[in-house]
Amino acid sequence: MTTAEKAYIAGFLDADGSIYVRLKPNEDYRYNFQVAPYIVFYQKKNQVRVLEYIQNLLNIGYLRYRKDGIVEYTIGDVAGLRSLIAIVRDYLVLKRRRLCLLEEILSRKEDINSPEDFLALAKLIDKFEDLNYSQKRTVTSKKVALSLKEKGLL
Amino acid sequence: MTTAEKAYIAGFLDADGSIYVRLKPNEDYRYNFQVAPYIVFYQKKNQVRVLEYIQNLLNIGYLRYRKDGIVEYTIGDVAGLRSLIAIVRDYLVLKRRRLCLLEEILSRKEDINSPEDFLALAKLIDKFEDLNYSQKRTVTSKKVALSLKEKGLL
Repeated sequence: MTTAEKAYIAGFLDADGSIYVRLKPNEDYRYNFQVAPYIVFYQKKNQVRVLEYIQNLLNIGYLRYRKDGIVEYTIGDVAGLRSLIAIVRDYLVLKRRRLCLLEEILSRKEDINSPEDFLALAKLIDKFEDLNYSQKRTVTSKKVALSLKEKGLL
Repeated sequence: MTTAEKAYIAGFLDADGSIYVRLKPNEDYRYNFQVAPYIVFYQKKNQVRVLEYIQNLLNIGYLRYRKDGIVEYTIGDVAGLRSLIAIVRDYLVLKRRRLCLLEEILSRKEDINSPEDFLALAKLIDKFEDLNYSQKRTVTSKKVALSLKEKGLL
């Protein structure tokens, strides 16, 4: 990929993209919460070709057509996220701290050996709240701590 | 400016920017309409630093703080527009046709020698309507033609 292509994607992500991690309650997971990291690009349906263009460059992620006419281009798998992080890291202006936080979470996520480790990870995910501006987070590390205590893990 | 900076600005403009030309009724102008071309970048107030970053790179245009918490970084002067067009032209994906149309209008605008020329320019400006998706245009070439006829110019 060229420098211009990488920087274009970074500019687009800064303007119409989102970098975040969700904690989803899910009994199938060891500590009853799924850690779900995302990078998402948004665009109106009639301009979806720009998302397809970026998807073709990156060869990762998938498009989802929402009912409100917005298309989301989502990268949620760890390998895809790692490659995208490497691509845009040097060119982001606005979302650089979020990207670093995401990267740290991906690393920590693969090295969870105890409920304490998991709670520490959840607290790191809380930090997205400070940087975030669009959504209110409902599942925080407090909920995780409560759940771990209920299960007798903490 | 580096390739990365140019491409970043193009990506940002494609995502959160706007390229358009307005026809404003104004008796001070020869044919009673002002042709007002714009390139605008938008961002929430708490992230205005990205607009300041782009403004510092470009050294053109001005910031306007809207009451709804959005900041507009507007380039409306012909020299500034021409330099910005040259900078992003090769890197835009989504708004390339709008940019070409803007460029054509800037050229034609400087070569108006008759009411017919002006009406032809107004018709060119109408074309933004086809490419546009956010606003409804109220002052069209039809209004210009009517006005020119009323003044006995056509």
